[in-house]
Amino acid sequence: MHDLGYARLDTDRLERTGDAEVVYGAGKTPTQVVELLRTLHETHPGHAVLATRLSTEAQEAVSAALPEAVVDPVGRTAVLGSAPALRGTVAVVAAGTSDAPVAAEAATTVGVFGAAVDLITDVGVSGLHRVLSVRERLAAADCLIVVAGMEGALPSVVGGLVGVPLVAVPTSVGYGASFGGVAALLGMLNSCAPGVTVVNIDNGFGAGVFAARVARRAAPTEVKTQ
Amino acid sequence: MHDLGYARLDTDRLERTGDAEVVYGAGKTPTQVVELLRTLHETHPGHAVLATRLSTEAQEAVSAALPEAVVDPVGRTAVLGSAPALRGTVAVVAAGTSDAPVAAEAATTVGVFGAAVDLITDVGVSGLHRVLSVRERLAAADCLIVVAGMEGALPSVVGGLVGVPLVAVPTSVGYGASFGGVAALLGMLNSCAPGVTVVNIDNGFGAGVFAARVARRAAPTEVKTQ
Amino acid sequence: MHDLGYARLDTDRLERTGDAEVVYGAGKTPTQVVELLRTLHETHPGHAVLATRLSTEAQEAVSAALPEAVVDPVGRTAVLGSAPALRGTVAVVAAGTSDAPVAAEAATTVGVFGAAVDLITDVGVSGLHRVLSVRERLAAADCLIVVAGMEGALPSVVGGLVGVPLVAVPTSVGYGASFGGVAALLGMLNSCAPGVTVVNIDNGFGAGVFAARVARRAAPTEVKTQ
Amino acid sequence: MHDLGYARLDTDRLERTGDAEVVYGAGKTPTQVVELLRTLHETHPGHAVLATRLSTEAQEAVSAALPEAVVDPVGRTAVLGSAPALRGTVAVVAAGTSDAPVAAEAATTVGVFGAAVDLITDVGVSGLHRVLSVRERLAAADCLIVVAGMEGALPSVVGGLVGVPLVAVPTSVGYGASFGGVAALLGMLNSCAPGVTVVNIDNGFGAGVFAARVARRAAPTEVKTQ
Amino acid sequence: MHDLGYARLDTDRLERTGDAEVVYGAGKTPTQVVELLRTLHETHPGHAVLATRLSTEAQEAVSAALPEAVVDPVGRTAVLGSAPALRGTVAVVAAGTSDAPVAAEAATTVGVFGAAVDLITDVGVSGLHRVLSVRERLAAADCLIVVAGMEGALPSVVGGLVGVPLVAVPTSVGYGASFGGVAALLGMLNSCAPGVTVVNIDNGFGAGVFAARVARRAAPTEVKTQ
Amino acid sequence: MHDLGYARLDTDRLERTGDAEVVYGAGKTPTQVVELLRTLHETHPGHAVLATRLSTEAQEAVSAALPEAVVDPVGRTAVLGSAPALRGTVAVVAAGTSDAPVAAEAATTVGVFGAAVDLITDVGVSGLHRVLSVRERLAAADCLIVVAGMEGALPSVVGGLVGVPLVAVPTSVGYGASFGGVAALLGMLNSCAPGVTVVNIDNGFGAGVFAARVARRAAPTEVKTQ
Amino acid sequence: MHDLGYARLDTDRLERTGDAEVVYGAGKTPTQVVELLRTLHETHPGHAVLATRLSTEAQEAVSAALPEAVVDPVGRTAVLGSAPALRGTVAVVAAGTSDAPVAAEAATTVGVFGAAVDLITDVGVSGLHRVLSVRERLAAADCLIVVAGMEGALPSVVGGLVGVPLVAVPTSVGYGASFGGVAALLGMLNSCAPGVTVVNIDNGFGAGVFAARVARRAAPTEVKTQ
Amino acid sequence: MHDLGYARLDTDRLERTGDAEVVYGAGKTPTQVVELLRTLHETHPGHAVLATRLSTEAQEAVSAALPEAVVDPVGRTAVLGSAPALRGTVAVVAAGTSDAPVAAEAATTVGVFGAAVDLITDVGVSGLHRVLSVRERLAAADCLIVVAGMEGALPSVVGGLVGVPLVAVPTSVGYGASFGGVAALLGMLNSCAPGVTVVNIDNGFGAGVFAARVARRAAPTEVKTQ
Repeated sequence: MHDLGYARLDTDRLERTGDAEVVYGAGKTPTQVVELLRTLHETHPGHAVLATRLSTEAQEAVSAALPEAVVDPVGRTAVLGSAPALRGTVAVVAAGTSDAPVAAEAATTVGVFGAAVDLITDVGVSGLHRVLSVRERLAAADCLIVVAGMEGALPSVVGGLVGVPLVAVPTSVGYGASFGGVAALLGMLNSCAPGVTVVNIDNGFGAGVFAARVARRAAPTEVKTQ
Repeated sequence: MHDLGYARLDTDRLERTGDAEVVYGAGKTPTQVVELLRTLHETHPGHAVLATRLSTEAQEAVSAALPEAVVDPVGRTAVLGSAPALRGTVAVVAAGTSDAPVAAEAATTVGVFGAAVDLITDVGVSGLHRVLSVRERLAAADCLIVVAGMEGALPSVVGGLVGVPLVAVPTSVGYGASFGGVAALLGMLNSCAPGVTVVNIDNGFGAGVFAARVARRAAPTEVKTQ
Repeated sequence: MHDLGYARLDTDRLERTGDAEVVYGAGKTPTQVVELLRTLHETHPGHAVLATRLSTEAQEAVSAALPEAVVDPVGRTAVLGSAPALRGTVAVVAAGTSDAPVAAEAATTVGVFGAAVDLITDVGVSGLHRVLSVRERLAAADCLIVVAGMEGALPSVVGGLVGVPLVAVPTSVGYGASFGGVAALLGMLNSCAPGVTVVNIDNGFGAGVFAARVARRAAPTEVKTQ
Repeated sequence: MHDLGYARLDTDRLERTGDAEVVYGAGKTPTQVVELLRTLHETHPGHAVLATRLSTEAQEAVSAALPEAVVDPVGRTAVLGSAPALRGTVAVVAAGTSDAPVAAEAATTVGVFGAAVDLITDVGVSGLHRVLSVRERLAAADCLIVVAGMEGALPSVVGGLVGVPLVAVPTSVGYGASFGGVAALLGMLNSCAPGVTVVNIDNGFGAGVFAARVARRAAPTEVKTQ
Repeated sequence: MHDLGYARLDTDRLERTGDAEVVYGAGKTPTQVVELLRTLHETHPGHAVLATRLSTEAQEAVSAALPEAVVDPVGRTAVLGSAPALRGTVAVVAAGTSDAPVAAEAATTVGVFGAAVDLITDVGVSGLHRVLSVRERLAAADCLIVVAGMEGALPSVVGGLVGVPLVAVPTSVGYGASFGGVAALLGMLNSCAPGVTVVNIDNGFGAGVFAARVARRAAPTEVKTQ
Repeated sequence: MHDLGYARLDTDRLERTGDAEVVYGAGKTPTQVVELLRTLHETHPGHAVLATRLSTEAQEAVSAALPEAVVDPVGRTAVLGSAPALRGTVAVVAAGTSDAPVAAEAATTVGVFGAAVDLITDVGVSGLHRVLSVRERLAAADCLIVVAGMEGALPSVVGGLVGVPLVAVPTSVGYGASFGGVAALLGMLNSCAPGVTVVNIDNGFGAGVFAARVARRAAPTEVKTQ
Repeated sequence: MHDLGYARLDTDRLERTGDAEVVYGAGKTPTQVVELLRTLHETHPGHAVLATRLSTEAQEAVSAALPEAVVDPVGRTAVLGSAPALRGTVAVVAAGTSDAPVAAEAATTVGVFGAAVDLITDVGVSGLHRVLSVRERLAAADCLIVVAGMEGALPSVVGGLVGVPLVAVPTSVGYGASFGGVAALLGMLNSCAPGVTVVNIDNGFGAGVFAARVARRAAPTEVKTQ
Repeated sequence: MHDLGYARLDTDRLERTGDAEVVYGAGKTPTQVVELLRTLHETHPGHAVLATRLSTEAQEAVSAALPEAVVDPVGRTAVLGSAPALRGTVAVVAAGTSDAPVAAEAATTVGVFGAAVDLITDVGVSGLHRVLSVRERLAAADCLIVVAGMEGALPSVVGGLVGVPLVAVPTSVGYGASFGGVAALLGMLNSCAPGVTVVNIDNGFGAGVFAARVARRAAPTEVKTQ
């Protein structure tokens, strides 16, 4: 364990669970984010380490202090360290353009946690031809992450098309009776397609960790290129 | 107005809105249901009159006292009087077998309020081929009633396939986080397909009244047979 | 389909559903709104195309870049292209002055989707004489859109006066136990007037699409002037 | 104070607040209800005493043990002792026939607490002519109790017609998104008519106590007959 | 009726209900507030007219344009015109210092609607001696307005002390599980003291209108001084 | 640990936390309850062991099979084994007669967990004199358990009178907007009296465990008699 | 597709998703359950087919009509047909004895969908030694199903111990503020352990389908014995 | 009682409950905070007095005007006056770094109310070794305050390890379905560990008052140093 005063890094987590701890940026200062990322990186020099939910200020601080870090302003993430060997593929499917930030957070997490990503965007259920046209790519994945706001119906449609394990991510996209993502969350929890599991609203990170673990186990051989 | 002591029938409603009052059977005794149906029928001899939400006891009382009434145990309705001339067609689409009672109430109401019905059942979104195979029938209708419980995703899928006016009916089918139909209700209110309107949970009657009015206006000529 | 990188326009929707896609402005940059509007317009030169939920900045960008567009700061919409032939009439009825933005969004949408509008404002239920004085106009419409916040009682009153198909739009006008429009939404879903359907809170656009479709079918002949 | 072992009667309440304590029958055995009514009556021989929310069994036990008691099976109340002199008039207005039990509880309470009652039933807002036809009786009352379920819109309509103090009682009549009376409760709390106050769902008793107090103060002279 | 373009003043309300319309300032521009106040005043020169929920900007605009208006920055109200003769007394009781704005709105409304006010502040239930010390003033009032946030217990305590009609106003004071005043609202709706009625969260105005009407009826003779 | 097939008794809990495990009777058959009680008693012969939430059938089975057990039909508990030495006193205060079952469960639990009980019932806040008359007993206790349903205001009143640690127990007593105890729960969580803590609705057991632990620590010397 | 009149079996699902359709017994008559099971079995003679949520009557009807079926009264399931070859292992972990029915439904589903089960029960978080003692078995599984009611904390504890993909199932075990499983559902959705996904309340079936799919992919070689 | 115009200080509370009143800073101006702190201090010169929920502006005003005050920017508190003799020890345990402000408020309150503090931070349940490593310190305390956001599972784990009285404080740390701390609140109310009590979301102050009272009673002898 590594004590920084304001936080104690769980540096043993890698050994315990196979994955390193992550810097959750919400509520942390840019300076703290930089320091935590650097410490994690030094502790696990052979692993890519990840920071999520970074404010614009924190993204800029990371870029300035750790120029080798890869910062993604859409998904609001930063990655430090060389990418791991990728085993298995996770298809990240997003219903609408507004769901892009959550899909990006999920995709980056999948990569850091060691699986390849196939990103498929803007395939909402009100235009079924868009979903149907990517059915082969869905079926080829080892795990699916399906991201949707509003009524959150996409996981039911996808889950009826293929038998790949599917993690649904409700987003807070919507207004009025979407109640900040609750409508999508309830829709996904009540999906009539069997085998759909759900994470918290906007939790692209959690879906990414889970899906990468599933994909890595499903495909022990390294994926050549992403 | 017709005063029966425990209720005053709004016998002027036909003139005011074009449609007769209806007997809402919930909370009424079988005797009251029979008396109200008979009184409505006598007041409007040229119209079919409708009773909804009938208990098994009330259905039996109506069958015994008014043998010319048509009683439907699935939709829990009774109709008394000759069917009106039917103008326009309403397609009533149900997602699952458990949604059958609400779909039946809607279909019977559509008929009493003067439109033809095309009933399409068991076309849930987790088996898209079922929806796609009826697209022609959906497109041919003057108005759609789409009935679904659980995540309530069917209206979004149907609403993306055709441009026919669509009334969605959430049902209380489900468990746990369906909250008695709330999940389906929220899903439908947040549909990403434009032009979807919604009625109360399990309110097949209200959807039927609305859809029949739309269909009658859309097709002033009588439909030959149902 | 038209791929702009950040969005794929569903340019086939017109053929599929009879109505063109619309630019939903929430969460989009002014530049994106302008580009999407222009692209839609070029794809459907014969149709008016619509953008909704525009920020002040987006409205200004549209006015500057597309001077032929009609921008409405009350309803926060922009329309580009010549108005379609109008068939049928939708009466848009608003309970209070605070409901004006939602009513305006609904009215503009009705026009773009091809029906004439009769706008009736400030007829709340606490002054019944105001509603009663417009009964003839209500009865003459092919479809009604009734917009109300707070307790959302206006659709029940209107629905008891005339038999025209009625779409209710709850607004987020109110405070405290209105819960951002939930009180009005629940009131409308539980309306004792038969044949009332409901859309999401503040969803003037959805009501407009639906009502225009109903009105167009009801009155196939073109309306002379709006 | 009078200690019965399972309850201590607050026999000083009459002196403190001007009104005697009441037997709330929910959760009490028939024997307890009889004993409590008898004790209250003996303590306040000059006052009518009231029991509410009586089960059928409790109603029968009261009728058997206290034959001079007046038992109302609709409102589920029992009254023991001679009626007080009545001062002022409360109009009890109910929207639908299903609201009758709550209206009856309110009306009986008003009488026991010393005001005359004018009972007006079945005047729902979807038939405005019914409300308008009783406007004179509404205006003549010293206080109004307006009872309604479903969307609970009647208080807004009545409150816009007359300036009499108005207590609204939401009822649990409805289904689906009425949530056991919550929709009516929210509707009444958000009424656009000024001067509407609200009590708990189905709380005819509380409304009756309040309205009788208002009416008695407004009309100190005794009303001749009820 | 008076049509200002953006609003139609219900200038007949005074005749219909005995009280003039009021300017609800939320969502209106300072210019609109000033114009509406002036128009109401000109229509009813003999009455005081009221504006509520005024922003700081609107308060300043009223002070500048209508120097004879009385503006209260605590209750965020403005009153224009000579005070009416006061009949009856309303005691306005507030639990904590944070409830002062709502109590002030209620008190000002009571005055404009024609009753005298006895303002009693900072008598929360966690210091019972404070409530007990004002019992005489409570008992002497014709109607009580009890304002409280957090758990909203004060109406139960006051309602057990005196038999005066009591209107409870929940406020949004609190945090966490107070849910913006919902805890206080529910507490008041479930009060164990009989005869408590409730208005919307922070609705001092509604309570004031109601209580003034009760007090005026209870005490037809004019109160000498406030 | 003791494995009974359908349950594994945590027989080490006594050593770990100082208190033995308890039989939670809800959802268990009468036979299981008897067997679990007997096993716990045999494991801890020197301690009284407790079963809670017993159905009538389970109470009868315990009485028949374990005649030395003390069964309380009000609190629905059974106690087996000799009472421990009592240290410290817990005052259990209940607002109304309907709260008696929860208060009884709390009182029995306090005794089994080793503290004396002072039971004070029927002291609701609408009759303050009842609370004030027991202030000395409240102040003399080492810990208070305050049980109330409906608006749950009693803890605020008691917590303002004395500085003794206070655990509040909301009960499901009430109807309508009490929402099965939620109103009381929220009231207690938002209490304006400092130092009030809360347990789950109807959780007399949990309050009893907590309060006994506090009282035992506060008064290490044995109480002579209960 | 196979049309039985009241239902259309999606007999193509096996080909589409790799898993056969399942009989969801809630709301179906015993006769319908038997007929559906038999038809599924005839369509897929080489697969085990499953029925869930069977009433006692339906279980008895299946046992009588299909004696080769394996009926589990705890999990309320029936399985017909020979078990598939098992690939991979799912550990099903239950927090308390009351969670047994949901755990049993999950375990049976896992087996029918082709993975081995390691069932671990009664390891609630209030006795951590119980969880810690099974850590090796948890780490050896290919996927975890963690079943818990009340506060639903077990997935967080397990998810911090091992890095195996984890599906959490909230159960409706609890009372009061558990709100029928909502507390556990929210707890699991907000788990601080990364990589936890969630299904609907009491949805052991859905978790079983998902986990079996993950386990089968992780361990393509057949497991020898269960 | 001390009347400052905008507030009346309950200066008798010390005598009534043994603890002085506290300045709740939310909604108060910096000037008011300073004046109230100074007045409390002058009234109780021998006691430390506390202000909570101070804005940055109020903290600066207190530092400037009352330089002897101890201001804590993390917990947003100010303390004026010499610390009391400390009796008993409260362990304040926080799950994550984001819970630090609430833990700090609790710790400062404990000190002002006369007990010693043992602060233990960053011991979330997803890293059990952290909790287990502090078990001795937990067992040595006289009362525990356990602070956690997200799923709020820490009190269940701690409550299963030791038998010390435990007050749980849910925090608003989290996003999406944490609903501002509701998930943690529900988790704590439904804890499977017996003897857990709960305070409002983010209410470190209330937990501190309660725990200090428990600790003082448990350990009447003064603690030497903190």
